[in-house]
Amino acid sequence: MTGETLIDPAACIGQNVTIGHAVRIYGNVEIGDGCKIGDFSVIGCPAMAKGLPYLKLGPRATIRSHAVIYEGSTIGPELEAGHHVVIREGTVIGENLRIGNLSDIEGNCKIGDFVRMHAYAHIGKGSVVGDFVWIFSLTTLMNDPLPPSHLFEPVTVGDMAIICVNAQCLPGAIIGRGALIASGAVAQGDIPPGVIVTGAAGEVAGPVRLMLHLPTRTKHPWPRHFTDAYPDRTHERIRTLAAEINEEAAHFQARTKA
Amino acid sequence: MTGETLIDPAACIGQNVTIGHAVRIYGNVEIGDGCKIGDFSVIGCPAMAKGLPYLKLGPRATIRSHAVIYEGSTIGPELEAGHHVVIREGTVIGENLRIGNLSDIEGNCKIGDFVRMHAYAHIGKGSVVGDFVWIFSLTTLMNDPLPPSHLFEPVTVGDMAIICVNAQCLPGAIIGRGALIASGAVAQGDIPPGVIVTGAAGEVAGPVRLMLHLPTRTKHPWPRHFTDAYPDRTHERIRTLAAEINEEAAHFQARTKA
Amino acid sequence: MTGETLIDPAACIGQNVTIGHAVRIYGNVEIGDGCKIGDFSVIGCPAMAKGLPYLKLGPRATIRSHAVIYEGSTIGPELEAGHHVVIREGTVIGENLRIGNLSDIEGNCKIGDFVRMHAYAHIGKGSVVGDFVWIFSLTTLMNDPLPPSHLFEPVTVGDMAIICVNAQCLPGAIIGRGALIASGAVAQGDIPPGVIVTGAAGEVAGPVRLMLHLPTRTKHPWPRHFTDAYPDRTHERIRTLAAEINEEAAHFQARTKA
Repeated sequence: MTGETLIDPAACIGQNVTIGHAVRIYGNVEIGDGCKIGDFSVIGCPAMAKGLPYLKLGPRATIRSHAVIYEGSTIGPELEAGHHVVIREGTVIGENLRIGNLSDIEGNCKIGDFVRMHAYAHIGKGSVVGDFVWIFSLTTLMNDPLPPSHLFEPVTVGDMAIICVNAQCLPGAIIGRGALIASGAVAQGDIPPGVIVTGAAGEVAGPVRLMLHLPTRTKHPWPRHFTDAYPDRTHERIRTLAAEINEEAAHFQARTKA
Repeated sequence: MTGETLIDPAACIGQNVTIGHAVRIYGNVEIGDGCKIGDFSVIGCPAMAKGLPYLKLGPRATIRSHAVIYEGSTIGPELEAGHHVVIREGTVIGENLRIGNLSDIEGNCKIGDFVRMHAYAHIGKGSVVGDFVWIFSLTTLMNDPLPPSHLFEPVTVGDMAIICVNAQCLPGAIIGRGALIASGAVAQGDIPPGVIVTGAAGEVAGPVRLMLHLPTRTKHPWPRHFTDAYPDRTHERIRTLAAEINEEAAHFQARTKA
Repeated sequence: MTGETLIDPAACIGQNVTIGHAVRIYGNVEIGDGCKIGDFSVIGCPAMAKGLPYLKLGPRATIRSHAVIYEGSTIGPELEAGHHVVIREGTVIGENLRIGNLSDIEGNCKIGDFVRMHAYAHIGKGSVVGDFVWIFSLTTLMNDPLPPSHLFEPVTVGDMAIICVNAQCLPGAIIGRGALIASGAVAQGDIPPGVIVTGAAGEVAGPVRLMLHLPTRTKHPWPRHFTDAYPDRTHERIRTLAAEINEEAAHFQARTKA
């Protein structure tokens, strides 16, 4: 630990925690063993609401500089948070979220295990994101169907779905498991499992399993060629999930053809 | 006040101001009573231009961590600034601006009262924004019609207009009062009052007053159902403004039909 | 230098360097003469990879507050970095890059001389950007053609090309010298020199030299009217480059007509 930090003595800090320069840790937190807190971060930032539970930050998190994580959230082990990230209160996050620089999770969200977000991902309040989901840069999960209003229809993203760069998910969108929202596309309504969605009108362009990178003959979905990017202990789970999605997608396609 | 802040003794700081951890306050500022300055913020950041007036920050502002507010701007009471916000010099802001995390006001702007901006709003230099305007995430108000050039045509946004997620306002766009630029749309030229603009070509799709959230029968414009989101003292003003816009829109529609 | 900074004694710091409040400077850096390091910045941030060379920051850089610059990059003289900027490791940057607030260079990039980036520019890992390029706000240079995968096809941007607001460059795009990717357009594949690309399908809409700002009769490309925005010592170089691009574009157009 370097000097010049400000740590509330009420904070509960685990073993072997590394704390960077000038960090601020508020009292309403429990930091797991082996966490690394980057310079100029704010951990347990007080929310406007009173009486929130403490921030429970799982073990072995790596939080890069200038991050802000509020009280009242529960975060699984091995969080990897980029620089200038914000995670608001009331959010429940699974194992090993990787969230890129300058991303913003707006609060009361539910995020599964092994989710990957790139830079400038804007996850609206109340969003529900499954396991092994990818969310690329400059995307928004919205929640107000008649902005501005008191209506509240957050987005649900199914397991293993992929939201590509600058894709936008309209309020209330329910994105099927394994679906891919292409770069710049707009997702709305119910997106079937395992389909590609393209364009501003959010049309279903076909099944993800037909996606092919010609020069290398690499095919989607990614469990065929990308499972090694996750820890060994997840591989069985990825295979099972991929098989389920495959079947779900085949059912859906059979049903819509009939 | 916590330790480790760096406050220029020339700074003029009001009563009951709360100052977070490691804050930097430069000398050329006047901070109103009851302001709360978040951790790691920079208040009165020096501009490149010399001889600018001081930053006048109105009373009861809440500025979240890692915000940067330059000298030479005048900000009305009850600013609410999110984390990692930047507000550059020469900007005049009305009452109770709420500006979301990671947003950027580029300087020499004029922002009305009770404006709401979500995350990643990029307000180009010289923009003029009316009262009760909403600007959602991943939007830009541009100002250079032939980038890059020395030409300078900032955007004007009328009172109560709504710029939805990922909508972009081209240089010189003049957005009529109460107009709604739909998510992903591009606004250019003169946008009539009270219309919906959609798509990359910025087409007028109809009047905002026909917008309806079917499941709840909620109708636009928002003063019908959202006035309670603002302080009581504004309600009369909202009603008057809404009536004016209604009339203006009706006139415009009659004229274009004739 | 103000108090409360944390500077590793191994850091090599030039003459007349100004260091802001609460800055963190790691040991693996060499900072050139006359640099100005803004408040709450992190200079020489350690990368995950071990054994990287030091950050070499050229003379007279101006780095604004809350910036993060990693070890293992080489940056030419007169960098101007905005607030909350991130520049990752392994990047080689030429002379006088100006990178706007909240922008993110992801690492292992090659950036030429006199490049200008506005806010929220997201430069994917491995991108190659030429000299005198402009990259406006809310843009991404992608690198994964089948996200997520281990495939890696970064974008190449030719000298003097212009990526306008919210334009997205798909993985593997090779943007010809002097081309202009219009606001909201999607660039993919090989973009010829000196053309305008528009729309979600990335169509070539014509040559940049036909672009005209009617009210002022200002014509593109910008060397005709914007060379004075660069230091005198570059003017000859700009003229030469513009002439080369002109010829290249003319050749291309003749060839495609034939």
